[in-house]
Amino acid sequence: MSGLKFRPQDIIEKKRDGNVLTSEEIAFIIRGYTNDEIPDYQIAAWLMAVFNRGMNPEETRTLVKEMLHSGTVLHHNLSRDGHRVPLVDKHSTGGVGDKTSLVIAPIAAACGVAVPMISGRGLAHTGGTLDKLEAIPGFRTDLSLADFKKVLKRCGFALIGQTAEIAPADRKLYALRDLTATVPCPPLICGSIMSKKLAEGIDGLVLDVKCGNGAFMHSENEAKSLARLLTRTAREMGKRCVALVTDMNQPLGRWIGNAVETREAIETLNGKLDGDFNDLSIELAARMIVVSGATRSIASARKQAREAIVSGAARERFRENIAAQGGDPRVLDDVSLLPQAKYKTDILCEAAGYVASIATNELGRVVMDWGGGRLRLQDAIDLSVGLEVHAKIGDKVQRGDPLVTAYYNDKSRLAEMKKRLGATYVLSKRPVVPPKLIKTVI
Amino acid sequence: MSGLKFRPQDIIEKKRDGNVLTSEEIAFIIRGYTNDEIPDYQIAAWLMAVFNRGMNPEETRTLVKEMLHSGTVLHHNLSRDGHRVPLVDKHSTGGVGDKTSLVIAPIAAACGVAVPMISGRGLAHTGGTLDKLEAIPGFRTDLSLADFKKVLKRCGFALIGQTAEIAPADRKLYALRDLTATVPCPPLICGSIMSKKLAEGIDGLVLDVKCGNGAFMHSENEAKSLARLLTRTAREMGKRCVALVTDMNQPLGRWIGNAVETREAIETLNGKLDGDFNDLSIELAARMIVVSGATRSIASARKQAREAIVSGAARERFRENIAAQGGDPRVLDDVSLLPQAKYKTDILCEAAGYVASIATNELGRVVMDWGGGRLRLQDAIDLSVGLEVHAKIGDKVQRGDPLVTAYYNDKSRLAEMKKRLGATYVLSKRPVVPPKLIKTVI
Repeated sequence: MSGLKFRPQDIIEKKRDGNVLTSEEIAFIIRGYTNDEIPDYQIAAWLMAVFNRGMNPEETRTLVKEMLHSGTVLHHNLSRDGHRVPLVDKHSTGGVGDKTSLVIAPIAAACGVAVPMISGRGLAHTGGTLDKLEAIPGFRTDLSLADFKKVLKRCGFALIGQTAEIAPADRKLYALRDLTATVPCPPLICGSIMSKKLAEGIDGLVLDVKCGNGAFMHSENEAKSLARLLTRTAREMGKRCVALVTDMNQPLGRWIGNAVETREAIETLNGKLDGDFNDLSIELAARMIVVSGATRSIASARKQAREAIVSGAARERFRENIAAQGGDPRVLDDVSLLPQAKYKTDILCEAAGYVASIATNELGRVVMDWGGGRLRLQDAIDLSVGLEVHAKIGDKVQRGDPLVTAYYNDKSRLAEMKKRLGATYVLSKRPVVPPKLIKTVI
Repeated sequence: MSGLKFRPQDIIEKKRDGNVLTSEEIAFIIRGYTNDEIPDYQIAAWLMAVFNRGMNPEETRTLVKEMLHSGTVLHHNLSRDGHRVPLVDKHSTGGVGDKTSLVIAPIAAACGVAVPMISGRGLAHTGGTLDKLEAIPGFRTDLSLADFKKVLKRCGFALIGQTAEIAPADRKLYALRDLTATVPCPPLICGSIMSKKLAEGIDGLVLDVKCGNGAFMHSENEAKSLARLLTRTAREMGKRCVALVTDMNQPLGRWIGNAVETREAIETLNGKLDGDFNDLSIELAARMIVVSGATRSIASARKQAREAIVSGAARERFRENIAAQGGDPRVLDDVSLLPQAKYKTDILCEAAGYVASIATNELGRVVMDWGGGRLRLQDAIDLSVGLEVHAKIGDKVQRGDPLVTAYYNDKSRLAEMKKRLGATYVLSKRPVVPPKLIKTVI
């Protein structure tokens, strides 16, 4: 490291002692790490110092910029009828049963908003859009950036995984954060999310910041604080941005798992319009339409989003996209083409009452542990495994009612999983008010 | 790491959040790192978490034990006239001009206390005992542990560098701390010092914890706090221990550098008994005699220490030791056998007044930068470079008096060094009270 402008240990010490880093120092750290000039162990100590001392808005913005420009930043020139097509994406901080991307990308595209969506895989108790899409026979999420742009142009949206060209600093940093207990740190989360999303070449971004026992952030205040940091950073970087803080104290929708969530998304695109999953999908799609600049009225945007489903326009966009990404579009008409688990078992209610709480994280973990998710990114998964959630918070249940139905292939773990699933529900003798789905808009 | 009892990231997270680690968790970290099973980057994040959150006394004790038992712990069976000879060492936290080890080891040995001293090299602005010893032509500090024990038995003291067998956990951890800005952390300092010192097989330890602008700890309170932690830990581990908190706001003694400090130590052994360096040497040697259990009276111990010099007994011990470790014992009679610098230049006082302060750290850095010290342990050094300090805090000086004399070989840097040296003294028009040398005994 001799001859370099700084010594990494001096920058670590500066942050360790709570001082503000200059743009040059942050650039030195991020570029040095991306280029393998600064070793993992110095970055690990720096990450822990950042975890402890935080970053101010300017430091955070510099971090985002450096991580963003560590790789390719896409540019799109899409037009329709002589007008530039606006590009908007959505990012969720992750939850259980959250399959909104599969519904809102087609809706937004049907409403004239292009969605260049680069997604992730499921990790720990939360699912990932890529795994759900790959439940569609033949669907490819590993397109090159050139093909990604082509599909986007043709269908109005495209869905791929992170490539080596996009935010390589984040790939290295995220892997290190995961192993050094420095994941739940607002400026680092902001750097990770924003560098990947802004690399897509978007004009605006809708954020779904989840809080509750199935989310990474448990408290609403933490989620609001992160939402404010994310929206402020995006706006300061010239992007339109809105964040919804939403409830994750119970699974979103009725299904948890990969193929089963894809089926639920298809049912919504086929016209099912009730329930929390559908409400949130409409709201997020409407926010994308507003962020795109097409309208300033959220009521009008919600109406457009609903009409895109009722008219079948969103569904037809998804059909085009599935075909363009190598998948079998017949799944839209016949969901039995999706992978199916061999066995199903109901978990029954042992007493009457009202559902007071659901251990959402644990439901996600059961799916993961039964083969439907992964602890490490390289693990293989069973896309057919899943849970159907019959009772949500506030529902009145009777003894013997099914709370959850498990779909699985590994019979040997049934007794253990039944026990775990049975313990996820807490009932109350008195009526329970369900949590509000959308807590705040920031 | 699969199949192991813990995941390192869970232990990092636990400490990150301010929780107390169990003995098993600390053992897992230290053993895993020593055996190369846990990577540097996870230990770096753990070190920064420890830096931030600290360790309680029990955690610190476990850390010391694990680091100590990562390698060989020496045992000695020394007896004289049918009685077991007690083994005591001294450790200083490091300062400028601190050559006490070269004087107190022979004194203690002459007073019947065996001193199995494993020392370090100079780093940054502070000198190291090994470099000073190596200024004696032929002197070897790289003895095997078997030869170390033999010299100890024959001469009553032996002085070597850290070997691969002694506290290997500390070797790895210290190198990593140096590069990750996690050095100034009390439990980690305690682990590092105690693991190396207790591995020597001692019964007791005298600590010289320095504070001031030439020490790692600037404030007296920090130094006292570290002294309490060190003495408590040593006592809880069954060792007798006393700590002196001493002043390091000016160089100790009159000389800074390697060969010149060895010369100053020889002059003391030859009977020079005035000045702060000599006072501190007598006090530390006396504390070693008390800690050895030979007497409970510190006044009597001081008398014994002085007599060991006056009688020439300490000097003769040093003669035996130099011969046993391959050096030329004639240096005791002819200090011109030590390496000599080619040039000398006086730095003159530009006004009359009283010395109010001395930038002690900077004096050490000038010696280092002029070739007498190292920034990295692998750097080669020039043993002959040094400074003679003529004026100490409180001294009355006249315009034109020499403040410092520089001894050097690289003429090209003279102008720069003169400028730096001239800026190290601050004078006052009014009389200044010199700082108290020994601030507290803990």
